Amino acid sequence: MGKGKDTGGKKVSPLAPSRFATLPPLAGVRLATVAAGIRYAQRTDVLLAVFAPGTQVAGVFTKSRTCSAPVVWCRDKLKGGNARALVVNSGNANAFTGKVGQDGVREIADSAAAIVGCKPGDVFMASTGVIGEPLPTKKITNVLAGLVENTAAGHWRAAAEAIMTTDTYPKLVTAQAMIDGTKVTINGIAKGSGMIAPDMATMLSFVFTDAALPASVLQELLSAGVGPSFNSITVDSDTSTSDTLLLFATGKGARHTEITKASDKKLNEFRRALDKVLLDLALMVVKDGEGAQKLIRVDVSGAENNAAAKRIALSIANSPLVKTAIAGADANWGRVVMAVGKAGEAADRDKLKISFGGQVVAEKGQRAAKYNENLATKAVSGRDVEIGVELGLGKGEARVWTCDLTHDYIDINGSYRS
Amino acid sequence: MGKGKDTGGKKVSPLAPSRFATLPPLAGVRLATVAAGIRYAQRTDVLLAVFAPGTQVAGVFTKSRTCSAPVVWCRDKLKGGNARALVVNSGNANAFTGKVGQDGVREIADSAAAIVGCKPGDVFMASTGVIGEPLPTKKITNVLAGLVENTAAGHWRAAAEAIMTTDTYPKLVTAQAMIDGTKVTINGIAKGSGMIAPDMATMLSFVFTDAALPASVLQELLSAGVGPSFNSITVDSDTSTSDTLLLFATGKGARHTEITKASDKKLNEFRRALDKVLLDLALMVVKDGEGAQKLIRVDVSGAENNAAAKRIALSIANSPLVKTAIAGADANWGRVVMAVGKAGEAADRDKLKISFGGQVVAEKGQRAAKYNENLATKAVSGRDVEIGVELGLGKGEARVWTCDLTHDYIDINGSYRS
Repeated sequence: MGKGKDTGGKKVSPLAPSRFATLPPLAGVRLATVAAGIRYAQRTDVLLAVFAPGTQVAGVFTKSRTCSAPVVWCRDKLKGGNARALVVNSGNANAFTGKVGQDGVREIADSAAAIVGCKPGDVFMASTGVIGEPLPTKKITNVLAGLVENTAAGHWRAAAEAIMTTDTYPKLVTAQAMIDGTKVTINGIAKGSGMIAPDMATMLSFVFTDAALPASVLQELLSAGVGPSFNSITVDSDTSTSDTLLLFATGKGARHTEITKASDKKLNEFRRALDKVLLDLALMVVKDGEGAQKLIRVDVSGAENNAAAKRIALSIANSPLVKTAIAGADANWGRVVMAVGKAGEAADRDKLKISFGGQVVAEKGQRAAKYNENLATKAVSGRDVEIGVELGLGKGEARVWTCDLTHDYIDINGSYRS
Repeated sequence: MGKGKDTGGKKVSPLAPSRFATLPPLAGVRLATVAAGIRYAQRTDVLLAVFAPGTQVAGVFTKSRTCSAPVVWCRDKLKGGNARALVVNSGNANAFTGKVGQDGVREIADSAAAIVGCKPGDVFMASTGVIGEPLPTKKITNVLAGLVENTAAGHWRAAAEAIMTTDTYPKLVTAQAMIDGTKVTINGIAKGSGMIAPDMATMLSFVFTDAALPASVLQELLSAGVGPSFNSITVDSDTSTSDTLLLFATGKGARHTEITKASDKKLNEFRRALDKVLLDLALMVVKDGEGAQKLIRVDVSGAENNAAAKRIALSIANSPLVKTAIAGADANWGRVVMAVGKAGEAADRDKLKISFGGQVVAEKGQRAAKYNENLATKAVSGRDVEIGVELGLGKGEARVWTCDLTHDYIDINGSYRS
């Protein structure tokens, strides 16, 4: 993640929710947090989740070629499909830390396994913070026994706070769904802030359900769900070494019909609820992008295909010139033209239509006949900005979200390690 | 280009050369500039260059799918290989201006051709400034007759100034070379500033020589020369709609041996001189990147191949997190690890070696044993920063340049059109 700066005293993002979701207890999940002094003083930085026996797990991870030690560990252990514990620390990413980093992961897994009473391979892990600093492993293993004793069915807010780095608010979502007449619950938490351009999974996010679903089904649901959620957001085009999204299913909620395939229609409602949880968490991440003052939604339609639409949408969402213009409430649609043009996908200048907040500002190869500067400026002046691009070539569509690029991003990242 | 803001009163880049090159007259080239009021008051914004009969031309242009009307024109007229005039305006990019924009180009070509006494197809053109605003064509055609009368063999500095937008200094380079014992001269000018991520050519740059070389030879030299120069710089990853690099050869210098092939060994010295002119101009562009306080050179070696090396180098050079860290003199090599990891090219964490200013900071999958924070900080504290990445996989190499990302970039681009 490369993140780990203390945000104490930093003002909360203006895009933060007015109040945080209160997550209900989830059968089979117990949580505890502690301030272990990984990097900051007086700030919780280790989260332990203990799962009931039989809990199944799925995950998606960064595609980075320089991924962190815990990502390597999780990817391997996911093959088993079983999870009994999750250990997360903030303040240190344990990325590019060599053998020391790998050994640290192993020590934490062994230690947690002994305390929880499971196999080391059932312990999952994630780290977020500075890249390249050796992980102070002992600070984590030393607190595990105490954490286990303090686990409780609640503590969701504390859990979301313990994984924050430059985040200005905790990210929590809950949803319920029926599986063939039986109610199940999904709780999710996430952290993000900078180095956000997920390429497979994203940031750290952990989603938990009391439903009884096998790992293979969870994996299929999760892999499909990340496309339009975490993989459709970007803060700064920089993909983290540590992106980790894990989905745990304890099977300790009310008993429901057995499900063995992700394509089972009885899962439709659950799938929708899960997708919504993933999207809500992803949007919370982008709304808390470093320095973010505005949420920008980019809708591209009429592209040759969906992949082309997504590349064009990301070209717009990652353009520093588009993002600084929006920050300055400048309806500079010419920069959207530029970003479409540089994406490397088919585009026809004379078929292109661009809109801000639903208002067409450019079409037929030039400024729209009805263009109104005041209305265009108004469309980019609020907290929520919508950019629409219709290419007029095919049926490809994509929607991505980003935030504006402001002075705070420079401030936060100019002296991050110090 | 999407650029066109008045830089009056803005301080000159600290990376500007201490003095500007004085370009000698070039046989067969006459220049004149005027303040036509395209966008700003009291600022020269139209450049006319008139070439001797027989002048040959080559060019490379933006790969943008939404390129400007003058780019479309030049690309077409280049087929003839002959040039008699060049008309450049700043303040308006004539991009995404529809039929009005195309008609404007035609009117300017017709008007210049009538005045100079040539075919419209021998008139080349480039425009830089805001995208999407209709070009005030008449303001240009009205001044052409007066410009022709004022052309002179000098005026190079004025020419470089007339094409500036958010540039804080004019960009001029001159070089000499021998072709089989005969001395020839190359003069070049350029403008850049923001929206700089050339993908074939770059920004506006015009290079002139008095050598007698056919268009086919010029084109081969130019296409090869842009790779390690203009196509190896980036300010903000945003590729312009207007990138244009034209090379004119008047053949009016001292008579030299006839050259018919770019591979002729007699051209070696000329080729080296041309390559140096292109590189010097490109470096001047990146040193004047919007808000630039530091020049960052990224050297990648040991990649699978040269293309992979270049993608990795650009991934580093375009990373907002790397660029803000350098701006803040933070030796955050973890972000270089991240940028290597996200590039999508083969990389092996444990073979990767990273250096700042020649000092190894990370190797063998972790922080270098001899890492010294003070020395690392010193290496990123000056005006010139060198980032070295050795992948240890193959023989692929690349060198690219960028600048740091500072508050001034946000200021310049937050209210650019207003």
